[in-house]
Amino acid sequence: MSQLSTKHLLGIKNLTEDDLQLILDTAANFKEVINRPIKKVPSLRDITIANVFFENSTRTRLSFELAEKRLSADVVNFSSANSSVKKGETLVDTVNNILSMKVDMVVMRHSSPGAPHFLSRNVNANIINAGDGTHEHPTQALLDSFSIKEKLGDVAGKKVAIIGDILHSRVALSNIFCLQKLGAEVMVCGPITLLPKYIASLGVKVELDVKKALQWCDVANVLRIQLERQQIKYFPSLREYSLYYGINKKLLSQLDKEIVIMHPGPINRGVELSSDVADSEHSIILEQVQNGVAVRMAVLYLLAGTKG
Amino acid sequence: MSQLSTKHLLGIKNLTEDDLQLILDTAANFKEVINRPIKKVPSLRDITIANVFFENSTRTRLSFELAEKRLSADVVNFSSANSSVKKGETLVDTVNNILSMKVDMVVMRHSSPGAPHFLSRNVNANIINAGDGTHEHPTQALLDSFSIKEKLGDVAGKKVAIIGDILHSRVALSNIFCLQKLGAEVMVCGPITLLPKYIASLGVKVELDVKKALQWCDVANVLRIQLERQQIKYFPSLREYSLYYGINKKLLSQLDKEIVIMHPGPINRGVELSSDVADSEHSIILEQVQNGVAVRMAVLYLLAGTKG
Amino acid sequence: MSQLSTKHLLGIKNLTEDDLQLILDTAANFKEVINRPIKKVPSLRDITIANVFFENSTRTRLSFELAEKRLSADVVNFSSANSSVKKGETLVDTVNNILSMKVDMVVMRHSSPGAPHFLSRNVNANIINAGDGTHEHPTQALLDSFSIKEKLGDVAGKKVAIIGDILHSRVALSNIFCLQKLGAEVMVCGPITLLPKYIASLGVKVELDVKKALQWCDVANVLRIQLERQQIKYFPSLREYSLYYGINKKLLSQLDKEIVIMHPGPINRGVELSSDVADSEHSIILEQVQNGVAVRMAVLYLLAGTKG
Repeated sequence: MSQLSTKHLLGIKNLTEDDLQLILDTAANFKEVINRPIKKVPSLRDITIANVFFENSTRTRLSFELAEKRLSADVVNFSSANSSVKKGETLVDTVNNILSMKVDMVVMRHSSPGAPHFLSRNVNANIINAGDGTHEHPTQALLDSFSIKEKLGDVAGKKVAIIGDILHSRVALSNIFCLQKLGAEVMVCGPITLLPKYIASLGVKVELDVKKALQWCDVANVLRIQLERQQIKYFPSLREYSLYYGINKKLLSQLDKEIVIMHPGPINRGVELSSDVADSEHSIILEQVQNGVAVRMAVLYLLAGTKG
Repeated sequence: MSQLSTKHLLGIKNLTEDDLQLILDTAANFKEVINRPIKKVPSLRDITIANVFFENSTRTRLSFELAEKRLSADVVNFSSANSSVKKGETLVDTVNNILSMKVDMVVMRHSSPGAPHFLSRNVNANIINAGDGTHEHPTQALLDSFSIKEKLGDVAGKKVAIIGDILHSRVALSNIFCLQKLGAEVMVCGPITLLPKYIASLGVKVELDVKKALQWCDVANVLRIQLERQQIKYFPSLREYSLYYGINKKLLSQLDKEIVIMHPGPINRGVELSSDVADSEHSIILEQVQNGVAVRMAVLYLLAGTKG
Repeated sequence: MSQLSTKHLLGIKNLTEDDLQLILDTAANFKEVINRPIKKVPSLRDITIANVFFENSTRTRLSFELAEKRLSADVVNFSSANSSVKKGETLVDTVNNILSMKVDMVVMRHSSPGAPHFLSRNVNANIINAGDGTHEHPTQALLDSFSIKEKLGDVAGKKVAIIGDILHSRVALSNIFCLQKLGAEVMVCGPITLLPKYIASLGVKVELDVKKALQWCDVANVLRIQLERQQIKYFPSLREYSLYYGINKKLLSQLDKEIVIMHPGPINRGVELSSDVADSEHSIILEQVQNGVAVRMAVLYLLAGTKG
């Protein structure tokens, strides 16, 4: 059997193209599994996985939990609301305590960029990054690429525009790394205030005009405006953003081609995406959610294989 | 096998008498199961159920979770405290996301009357209403009727008085529908300020004097004073309510017969019910709780049969 | 098979020495189990356990949950944040409701000393105290004694110093009872403001000077400064405490012997314990955590045997 080049999934940045292909191929098998009447496989029986979420995330936690249960793993959930972190314990101590209880894998969401990387150097278990601040969200990027491949046959050679609040998005960065490694062309598009200063150094096209971005791309991955992540007063306002960057059916009908619409959710309907686009035949948003379970099963399954 | 006339349990109002009898008969079988040393059956293996609670409810969530686990279903819990709802996502999007992860059934508690009905028209899964605002709480009514039948042999022909805060109670409305469909006579009794204006139109007797209500009935279903659900200043006060409507042993001893005492819980001891009544031989309050698991197993089992 | 003299684990105080030895011996077997590749045994299949936590505790709840799952029990979690307690329900009613749903065992954490004892006299199920206020925390004491026995061969005849905030600690009291019953000599050491007035009556040595305590003992069980449990202004301050009672490598190197370092966690690094001690070869802190799962498996297994 092929193996990943790493025992952790910290980010897309440190994965090889072979790693990515192996994950996507394995996920395709698991997608068949979860569409059968019997959705479970015994692959990770006798593996215990802790979902350690220092930041709330319904959809990601639920997706991982379902992936784990369908692999027959034992699952325990740990959220910061109940945690020793409030009592002054260090992150490494918290996780070492969980691991001492014979937990094999840790799926971790943390508000600080780099927290899972730090952890992986200090504890002995497979660490899966389920989002670290505004840094990476590797399983989201993997499910996005899986969904593009499923819809268009391949990722290589495709033009993908990531549109919206690039600055505060971990989804954007992981997607850029993943798409580039798989051979896609990547453009980012958004108001100048929501583009990071270093963005051009990543080898992506930068476009301020959403119409030009849509005309250029095969796939538009529309990010949500993450109001809860803003520290300072937001510019543009929601109303301004919607006016200049909101994607609706009228805008899409002006293009001379059809493009695939993606969104990592949760959608702010009427802000970054209108309902007639979100619910249209070109939208693969709910497919993305379904593919998320398959991709997470693949990651957990392959990393469990790197033990021992 | 008999089948329900519906693929959702949204309320008692849209069920037929045959539906109700089928649920009660099936629950009787499951009550035997949960009283055996081996309390589990494999009926819903390979079915995934999400408990989606937008409003806290310990007892109902726990009862559903145990019912699901005893049917061998896979269970995931989702509560609003961690939810995308706070991020501005619509209810339909939230639930469609959960369903895209291949969840088969959704048990849902929501503070807005009609939320599960709205959902059932917009998503593709079995929806079970676990309480929608002050509207319906169908599994509570079913377990109440099950408990009456178990205690008195039948529901038809029995006189049931629902006593207390009818206005803010979803239990009252579901019970009225259920008892009437099963052939019982129903009376509501409470202070005029806690009776809804439309109550007479439901074909129930209305009585303001609790002594007369108790003298009339075979069964008194005593509701709790739901302080947490009051929007405006409460009249009568707890002290006044207890004085004029509180049921205690002395009051019951003045009747010329014995009546069955029920309460959906949690009890405010000393307010609507004194301890010498709540803990007496005429009280079937803890039987109601036990029957709740059996009734919920029946509902889940029968609705799962309506798929495909 | 040997049996415990009790059907509840309320505290160490009411256990016999035979009980303690039986628990430690059984835990030794389960420690082997959880270090095998297949960490599960079917012992408690068909037993349902509710973890009822009226006070948050990540580590204890997780340890119990893993112990329960490795015994193949069905597990439901109940925390006060979602509970009917807020609706005015009594503790006995809340637990009787849970038990009516056919729950066999209740693991309970409560902020009031004596709450599990009160409960055990009023409900029909095995009650396991997972910490009641500043009173007892019996499974912590059991895992501490297990860890001493594992490290030093025996508990009898050993000198154990419990160092720190004795006044606000449930760990201290349970440890004193457990160590004395197993034949160890016990000393408590801390600032006079953090020693309870009744301490001398428990038959322990009392020492204010931490250097003398360390010189005397074979094992130092270092408690954490529980800032969150203080009602009044704290004396000494953290800085003062660390200066006079903090244990670091320099202090230990001045002793003419080597001692074992224990800590119930979570550690305040740099306050009661420096990192060069917490992470040293003399520290068995992470072994304690691992042993906690084995000890809790033993307690649950043995109490389940007292039913019927």
